[in-house]
Amino acid sequence: MLRPLILVTNDDGITAPGIRNLVSVASQLGEVVVVAPDSPQSGMGHAITINKPLRLDEISLFDEIISYQCSGTPVDCVKLAVDIVLKERKPDLLVSGINHGSNSSINVIYSGTMSAAVEGAIEGIPSIGFSLCDFSHKANFQPGLAFVKQIMASVLKNGLPKGTLLNVNIPKTDLESDINGIKIARQALARWKENFVEREDPGGRKYFWLTGKFVNDDKGTDTDEWALQNAYVSVVPTQFDLTDHHNISYLNSWSFES
Amino acid sequence: MLRPLILVTNDDGITAPGIRNLVSVASQLGEVVVVAPDSPQSGMGHAITINKPLRLDEISLFDEIISYQCSGTPVDCVKLAVDIVLKERKPDLLVSGINHGSNSSINVIYSGTMSAAVEGAIEGIPSIGFSLCDFSHKANFQPGLAFVKQIMASVLKNGLPKGTLLNVNIPKTDLESDINGIKIARQALARWKENFVEREDPGGRKYFWLTGKFVNDDKGTDTDEWALQNAYVSVVPTQFDLTDHHNISYLNSWSFES
Repeated sequence: MLRPLILVTNDDGITAPGIRNLVSVASQLGEVVVVAPDSPQSGMGHAITINKPLRLDEISLFDEIISYQCSGTPVDCVKLAVDIVLKERKPDLLVSGINHGSNSSINVIYSGTMSAAVEGAIEGIPSIGFSLCDFSHKANFQPGLAFVKQIMASVLKNGLPKGTLLNVNIPKTDLESDINGIKIARQALARWKENFVEREDPGGRKYFWLTGKFVNDDKGTDTDEWALQNAYVSVVPTQFDLTDHHNISYLNSWSFES
Repeated sequence: MLRPLILVTNDDGITAPGIRNLVSVASQLGEVVVVAPDSPQSGMGHAITINKPLRLDEISLFDEIISYQCSGTPVDCVKLAVDIVLKERKPDLLVSGINHGSNSSINVIYSGTMSAAVEGAIEGIPSIGFSLCDFSHKANFQPGLAFVKQIMASVLKNGLPKGTLLNVNIPKTDLESDINGIKIARQALARWKENFVEREDPGGRKYFWLTGKFVNDDKGTDTDEWALQNAYVSVVPTQFDLTDHHNISYLNSWSFES
């Protein structure tokens, strides 16, 4: 029997420890192909490269596993993987990550990791984004890997409903036994309160650097934030139909006069 | 009485004809401040700039209107506008566009125009993205401007439900009388089928250029694509809660065994 084909990508770049961990789990479940950015692409959201050329180069980084690095964004990587690298065989699963840092709550909107997974879902591939709530380059991925494998195996077994992908976040812990299990959750309605640091360059010209503070006023116990704070792996079913269907009838009541 | 404060931005850059048209309509309804990218940012999705500094420079481009150009993405522009330029007074309305080219259907995901509006909504500002279905730099915005004004006036009057913004697309026509009116619609479930053009650079090294074909298998007559093809201005209520709430109970039925 043909082993399932698993496409692996990320947004921290192909040399990040997070993708190495994801490749190692994926290899236990199927045949793996890696197409990932050649440099860090955090915060790229669903950006695509339309006004300049893209490079795609085969490299040897993960032993026997076929791997390509790409000069574009995470979404570019998925498009190149589907249209060029895997033209002959559609992947059975796309996994993106493991991101160094949380993509829970509103972070899903800014995240290159999640946008790669969204693009996979648009292409009709069951897709999962994985993130660990630790921004450090030296983050400890080990405690969460058994859950990563369980979730990947479940999606390979069951598939995913059309138009749905998974946003998986793993709490930062030292031991696997510190994790209480998996919680299916909704995206907490939190946001970043930006705070620009204002500085002067050596020439005396002003510049700004984006920083921010995560503000969560969503007190629900069914959110991804709640799950993570209670040491659960959060799994949010995520969609790319952005229509607010509930407000269509309300807007139909407007008269639109000038 | 204080006139409403309207923040105007876009993704085609501050010199694009589309933003000039939007500024002219907004000026009829309120006090306008412009914060827009200093260069084209199409396809940037919800990208933010976190690893390099941002420039923000006041410029004189629209007569008496306070205007800033920013070196970042559309989302950076909104964040800088809210945190720096308009620190003292929160805008009553954010409008983004008018984009040169459609942002209907799945384009909402890739669009810098719409991401600026999404960021506005996250900040709690009633927000609208406007796009004209004509990619040309010389696109004729005139026929749609009365509808742009009606929709802006309606949002200033009624506000918008929390977490909801509007994605407005205008059909390409020669005359205002060719437009049949406004249709509240849902996002058509269509997608781009990518097609990379493969070439060699002068040094003999391969590169790829992203092109694609829009494929719409969604035959609904309640979609934005249907509305536009029938010469209506489409208005899609859009949300940034990406949770697929309907599938939470389904996922809870999974056992997640490895």
